[in-house]
Amino acid sequence: MTSNLLADLADLAEHLPAELFTTLLEAPNLRIERIVSHGHASPEGFWYDQDQHEWIVLLKGAARLRIAGEEQPVEMQPGSFVNIPAHARHRVEWTTPDEPTIWLAVHYQPLIQGS
Amino acid sequence: MTSNLLADLADLAEHLPAELFTTLLEAPNLRIERIVSHGHASPEGFWYDQDQHEWIVLLKGAARLRIAGEEQPVEMQPGSFVNIPAHARHRVEWTTPDEPTIWLAVHYQPLIQGS
Repeated sequence: MTSNLLADLADLAEHLPAELFTTLLEAPNLRIERIVSHGHASPEGFWYDQDQHEWIVLLKGAARLRIAGEEQPVEMQPGSFVNIPAHARHRVEWTTPDEPTIWLAVHYQPLIQGS
Repeated sequence: MTSNLLADLADLAEHLPAELFTTLLEAPNLRIERIVSHGHASPEGFWYDQDQHEWIVLLKGAARLRIAGEEQPVEMQPGSFVNIPAHARHRVEWTTPDEPTIWLAVHYQPLIQGS
């Protein structure tokens, strides 16, 4: 009944062909996801533009995130977290090639008020 | 705009007098919280009984969780996660005295359907 989001990392290939997305929990208003990157970045010119808010924490590795309209990129180390509102365009500029980077992403949306 | 949930650990006293609870994000249907324990356990005979579901992951340290009605305790290591439904009674039996134990707790509830 307990699982471990770091346990299967040793089984992963030295270099993942693509980022690995694993849903850990799904509820009507919520999705918790583990993302494993290993040197991956968003394709040139690609921006995420999501309908849900996303709260993200970096657990392992290192990454650089770019949020549209912000002058400076966000340098992320283990423990760094950031809240990305829905439709705030963002992209992953860089993840370290030295080790897997593990993210925990909480996708959520506000309650829709009854009219 | 970015914060780090591990950054202020060095400032914490060697031994916390009590567990430390910090809300990292609050939304109508969601609360993300960091909990720092250091050798703490739930008081003898005390059980959490919560109105919200709780998804919890251990980021650092070690802990043993007891869930009412389950024969075996849940041994938690870094990366271990568990989903505790609302009103599933549970208690922390033990956290390691050797270092701070860091938990990330996602408290959530299902959308309430309009009648």
